[in-house]
Amino acid sequence: MSDPMQPAPEPSPSAVRFPDHVRRIVGATIVPEPGIQLDDAEIAFHTGTGVIDYLGPVRGPARPEDLDARGRIVAPGLVNGHTHSSMTMLRGWCDDLPLDLWLAQMRRFEVRMTAADIRAGLRLAMVEMLRSGTIGFVDMFSWNTELLGDVVDSGMRVRASPGVFGYGAVAFPMAEPEAGGVVLDEVPALAAEFAGEARITMDYGLHAPYTCPPDLIADVARRAIDRDLGVQIHLSETRREVAQSLTDHGMSPIAHVAGLGLFDTRLHVAHAVHPEPGDIDLLARPNVTVSHNPVSNLKLGAGIAPVPEYLAAGVTLGLGTDSVASNNTLDMFEEIKTGALVQRGLHTDPLALSAPAVLSMATRGGARSLSQGLSGRLAVGEQADLIVLDASGITASPNGDAGSFLGYAARGTDVTDVVIAGRQVVADRVVLTVDEEAARLDVRERVTRVRGELDAR
Amino acid sequence: MSDPMQPAPEPSPSAVRFPDHVRRIVGATIVPEPGIQLDDAEIAFHTGTGVIDYLGPVRGPARPEDLDARGRIVAPGLVNGHTHSSMTMLRGWCDDLPLDLWLAQMRRFEVRMTAADIRAGLRLAMVEMLRSGTIGFVDMFSWNTELLGDVVDSGMRVRASPGVFGYGAVAFPMAEPEAGGVVLDEVPALAAEFAGEARITMDYGLHAPYTCPPDLIADVARRAIDRDLGVQIHLSETRREVAQSLTDHGMSPIAHVAGLGLFDTRLHVAHAVHPEPGDIDLLARPNVTVSHNPVSNLKLGAGIAPVPEYLAAGVTLGLGTDSVASNNTLDMFEEIKTGALVQRGLHTDPLALSAPAVLSMATRGGARSLSQGLSGRLAVGEQADLIVLDASGITASPNGDAGSFLGYAARGTDVTDVVIAGRQVVADRVVLTVDEEAARLDVRERVTRVRGELDAR
Ligand SMILES: [Zn+2]
Ligand SMILES: [Zn+2]
Repeated sequence: MSDPMQPAPEPSPSAVRFPDHVRRIVGATIVPEPGIQLDDAEIAFHTGTGVIDYLGPVRGPARPEDLDARGRIVAPGLVNGHTHSSMTMLRGWCDDLPLDLWLAQMRRFEVRMTAADIRAGLRLAMVEMLRSGTIGFVDMFSWNTELLGDVVDSGMRVRASPGVFGYGAVAFPMAEPEAGGVVLDEVPALAAEFAGEARITMDYGLHAPYTCPPDLIADVARRAIDRDLGVQIHLSETRREVAQSLTDHGMSPIAHVAGLGLFDTRLHVAHAVHPEPGDIDLLARPNVTVSHNPVSNLKLGAGIAPVPEYLAAGVTLGLGTDSVASNNTLDMFEEIKTGALVQRGLHTDPLALSAPAVLSMATRGGARSLSQGLSGRLAVGEQADLIVLDASGITASPNGDAGSFLGYAARGTDVTDVVIAGRQVVADRVVLTVDEEAARLDVRERVTRVRGELDAR
Repeated sequence: MSDPMQPAPEPSPSAVRFPDHVRRIVGATIVPEPGIQLDDAEIAFHTGTGVIDYLGPVRGPARPEDLDARGRIVAPGLVNGHTHSSMTMLRGWCDDLPLDLWLAQMRRFEVRMTAADIRAGLRLAMVEMLRSGTIGFVDMFSWNTELLGDVVDSGMRVRASPGVFGYGAVAFPMAEPEAGGVVLDEVPALAAEFAGEARITMDYGLHAPYTCPPDLIADVARRAIDRDLGVQIHLSETRREVAQSLTDHGMSPIAHVAGLGLFDTRLHVAHAVHPEPGDIDLLARPNVTVSHNPVSNLKLGAGIAPVPEYLAAGVTLGLGTDSVASNNTLDMFEEIKTGALVQRGLHTDPLALSAPAVLSMATRGGARSLSQGLSGRLAVGEQADLIVLDASGITASPNGDAGSFLGYAARGTDVTDVVIAGRQVVADRVVLTVDEEAARLDVRERVTRVRGELDAR
């Protein structure tokens, strides 16, 4: 890794003059993708198009408008492959309950959330994600013009779906059954409204096969294919869900929704903890992406997904936090380390899964999950979606192997700067696009109100 | 949780005048032990004896010499139940290898560590532990007067053992077989030398039954009983170790060393991942403490210890990071969350283990493991071993349940202040007793040298 104590690199005699629309990050250790490391390197991008136009040795000292990143690490930005952002409102509420009571408690809280509460929760989530190096997220909740506008303003990327369900009490304020049809009509309208925003992708959202009747699932599959839109759904999260599906439909949840046409859409699956024989082939289809959510699956007692088998089968696997209600943070670095560790322990094999492989899930897999044509790698011609980390802290000492640091020792708090599509949205640990202090205080007040309402009952 | 925006508490008309030797922490949310929470509270202690003399409602505003802790959380300090501190030198070196190759690589590095390297590694480890809220640690490595003196100077607590082995290549520079006898003689000498230091406990250290012949184990057991000293040992870390012991001795590693007298000493056991029938009764003896090290056990593919069964059987269970070579941090908050999560996932039961229960392991269990008469709780008459955490950050928002924050969302970086035995050793995230910057640069230089030697071969 580069040494912050070294003198600044000398300009070469025939120094390039860099145009004003090019911004450079100079002197860092760059990890263009997990497993590759360039020391004392430079990356430059076009601030208008957001495209990377240089990656290689330092070409001269940093100008005032560049970022002098000696002693730091630059890596691809992380993508949160599955979350319900607005649920930051529920952090630390009912951590240790059996699943059915937990769902009931979540629902009690969520039905009291107003549109303004949902917006406040999203804002706090975006602050938390940006501060910890997340450049985009795949989200199922309640989405509308205002919320998507907030994401546009934040500079983040999102693949968003307003969740619907047909029966049962789901764990967040998705559209009630009677409103489901309306919400389904809104999806193509929102997609059209934000068609000019390259960082916004709209999906249909189905909560899960155990809350959505077959005709609703088939209807959404048809609509998605007709309108070339994607779909998000929770599948095979718990053994109980799988057993119930085998009883009710004679097949796994994955096979059941495949029979209804869902695997013929651009499908994003959350969880897939308990695949039955044949399910992995469906998940490995090129039009399908899957989010593995290890911390949530562990915390709720759902189990441990067969990640090594998924990777071997060619499943496009991202990594997600799920909501803070089952986590309790949105820190993807925690997810990366936990994701690697748990497979190694489960299989009693230190080669079962490496943190660099999980880092690939959070970057390349996540980028593909966003469905915005991104590679999740840093390379000339790709979008500048990148993060800068302080590599001078204790947990980066002694340093040398940036991949090891990123996978096994880094935390969100090590992130100093974030660039998305060539736009700097975090500088020196300050979010430039969302007011952090206001977001925290706003959520605190709103949570006090909701908890008060609940206590009053 | 207390609100940093509120005005300072008014002094009561008949305000107590506090003596100079009393230091107060005023206005915090205090968690005297997991599961109990006092909002807007005060804790005070005698700076000479280190004894807590008040815990309750705020008695008046903070004096300049007190700590105004409104908006913060005060909790018992964490104890790292098993580590090899000096191995901070090996952070990020050979993360993803099969266990035997990993051990060989560790050994290649460690035999090149000089006495000064070991000291530098310890200093960096103490900085990392203090910064992340750890007030004491149980350690097996190479110990001598100089190193123990460094711990005394740092203000930390340690239960230290110089490790010995009889054959095989162990994973750190413990005494070679021919030097074993000398090291065994040094233990009572060091114990006598530091008898006046209440924060230093000396143990005998046996690496493991698979590296120590039966006569060495029996000899150490006899010496420990004769001199009233404790013993530390790694036991039943991997299935392979257990299988080999069943083949060689016809019993588990735990039963084998019990037969040699080791469970009649004041014994501290690391790992115990794979108990055989009967082993749990031995581990539950009142003279025995056990350190559970989930991250290390996962990373090295050792497996997952039966923590719920241990707790049900009354085993005194602490929590440890093991060395950074198998972790790669010394952040006990990471260990707490991972420790809770992995049991819930393994047992597919969100009630399998709560983070507050694991927090108890890291505080009460750890305190008992130090063997210094500590309770690990904050109460009048107990030692002031406490940490202060910032509760205004994003992951503490919305706040309210300090136990949930400590168990599921806090990180070492949230710790602002640390008090050990009434002495403040960390203030506003700065370690007062060890020079952090010097420790980082020193280790970096030394690691560069050792890696250069290895590359040159
Ligand atoms: Zn979800
Ligand atoms: Zn160990």
